[in-house]
Amino acid sequence: MGGDYAPDEVVKGALSCTARTDLHIALVGKPDALDAVVAEHGGLPANVTIRPASQVIEMGESPTAALRTKRDSSLAVAIQMVRDREASAVVSAGNSGAFLTLAHLSLPPVTGIHRPAIGAVLPGHRGAWVLIDAGANADCKPIHLAQFGVMASIYCERALGVKQPKVGLLSIGEEQGKGSELILAAHRLLSKAPVNFIGNVEGDDLFSGEIDVVVADGFAGNVALKVGEGMAHFVLTELRGQIARSLMAKLGALLMRRPLKHLGEFFDYSTYGGALLMGVNGICVVSHGRSDARAIESAIQVAQRAVEGRVIEHLAAVVEQLQDRELAQ
Amino acid sequence: MGGDYAPDEVVKGALSCTARTDLHIALVGKPDALDAVVAEHGGLPANVTIRPASQVIEMGESPTAALRTKRDSSLAVAIQMVRDREASAVVSAGNSGAFLTLAHLSLPPVTGIHRPAIGAVLPGHRGAWVLIDAGANADCKPIHLAQFGVMASIYCERALGVKQPKVGLLSIGEEQGKGSELILAAHRLLSKAPVNFIGNVEGDDLFSGEIDVVVADGFAGNVALKVGEGMAHFVLTELRGQIARSLMAKLGALLMRRPLKHLGEFFDYSTYGGALLMGVNGICVVSHGRSDARAIESAIQVAQRAVEGRVIEHLAAVVEQLQDRELAQ
Repeated sequence: MGGDYAPDEVVKGALSCTARTDLHIALVGKPDALDAVVAEHGGLPANVTIRPASQVIEMGESPTAALRTKRDSSLAVAIQMVRDREASAVVSAGNSGAFLTLAHLSLPPVTGIHRPAIGAVLPGHRGAWVLIDAGANADCKPIHLAQFGVMASIYCERALGVKQPKVGLLSIGEEQGKGSELILAAHRLLSKAPVNFIGNVEGDDLFSGEIDVVVADGFAGNVALKVGEGMAHFVLTELRGQIARSLMAKLGALLMRRPLKHLGEFFDYSTYGGALLMGVNGICVVSHGRSDARAIESAIQVAQRAVEGRVIEHLAAVVEQLQDRELAQ
Repeated sequence: MGGDYAPDEVVKGALSCTARTDLHIALVGKPDALDAVVAEHGGLPANVTIRPASQVIEMGESPTAALRTKRDSSLAVAIQMVRDREASAVVSAGNSGAFLTLAHLSLPPVTGIHRPAIGAVLPGHRGAWVLIDAGANADCKPIHLAQFGVMASIYCERALGVKQPKVGLLSIGEEQGKGSELILAAHRLLSKAPVNFIGNVEGDDLFSGEIDVVVADGFAGNVALKVGEGMAHFVLTELRGQIARSLMAKLGALLMRRPLKHLGEFFDYSTYGGALLMGVNGICVVSHGRSDARAIESAIQVAQRAVEGRVIEHLAAVVEQLQDRELAQ
């Protein structure tokens, strides 16, 4: 029920997923609203069920208020299904603050993990890479950053199939001594962590394809995420503006229609579909509020890969190594 | 003498500036090297002099070592000319760490200003905007951020001609309560500062043209700067790759040659040419190490506008207001 285009686009995305996989999907929300959309798309397939929830947390609603007053929200019910092992994963394009708060409350962190964090899967020159933390923790300590690197590395290896993912630390200079106090201390800890740590990386390295995991506190990570999004949009808008100014360019753009369309899609973060809340005891995929059916489909795939890669089980196993290396308590 | 293409491109940029303004420019460095480039471009104009300096700080050299051993470097001599009021401004594309360190040592901060910071002039939908701090101070306190906003606002008004510049605080949510501890405290101080403070802004708002000054600590600011640079490069590279893959697109690109070229230039940060070190007693413009003649020309214009706008004098006058508002000591 959550997201700017819910329930229509969310249901549509879920249905097209079930059409070509053997996933079982539960649509959680107001039965009448869900039934209506399902009916429009040919009725309920065998591998889709509707799970009733009487309330909806609105997009702009305060998470804390919503938690108190809306105990039967679609988001709360969906997360409970993961907590109760009725579902392997939950995907939502709804109120992300409420999603994170509810997930924290219902799905305790994996033992030894201090702070769950958001890992965003983003486009790069040579395929996807993971930015962690993309915005869950505005203030971090060095040990949090080290653990973020471990969590995203496991995800990258188990769910994206990258062997020995290259883990970089976002800083403002490549040399070890460059960066804030937080980064200098995190650098020392990541050097001891059970990951393939390649050292500091800078903002202009992110899309180079040379790095699989970029570690940042949730403030710098969110800034990086959104500046990238804003700049991609800005370049494409300027391009369109330039084209509109000349007849010859318009003609040229017609011939380039397909590459231009591809480019727009490539840099549309929604096609990358999802960000994972890493470190909690359950697979939670936070999809963009603006998600359309394709973005939802993509987010469900992110969830599926995380489940099949047994990301949480592997994380739990690695936490023991962290304790040996003084990277956990 | 500093920069990847020095002295050739630097001298060329300076000469083309003097050709169309009444600026007087001193080229500082090894006379033989400078003479040779000047001779290639038709000899020394009346408003250009050569100021000898026997040493050069290399691009990769450690600033602290260079300061001890190279007291007669071109950078040191040029900054001394500003300190001694022989020059109104200094522009360099050389070792930026050495530039900042030398500027700090030779040109003390304006009384009341805690931390000089780098203000980078960047492209946006509706013209230039200023990002401060673009990387001078990795760790900041709230009062530093408030002062950054004041400094860049004065620059924007006096040098870029923007009336009542809109000052935003880079955060990870638009509401006042969103962000790190640092940002929450800086928000309170900026609300009291003598600037047109519009509140928090997010990374994807930067290029919208709605904000004239974006305030950040030097870590987040540098991340924003470089992620923007990296993403612009990434989009344009992908576009070229897409074009190369199809004959029809290649033909289209031919027709679009001019808009595409314009786009490449627009997003080439070097054409924006310069970043100002704000808060010290002298106009210092840090140009990109990769600067070509055009970038140097642009950096000299940035310096010229700052001098003509009497940015430092205005800052000194405003610092008194800061003391009244508990934004200085």
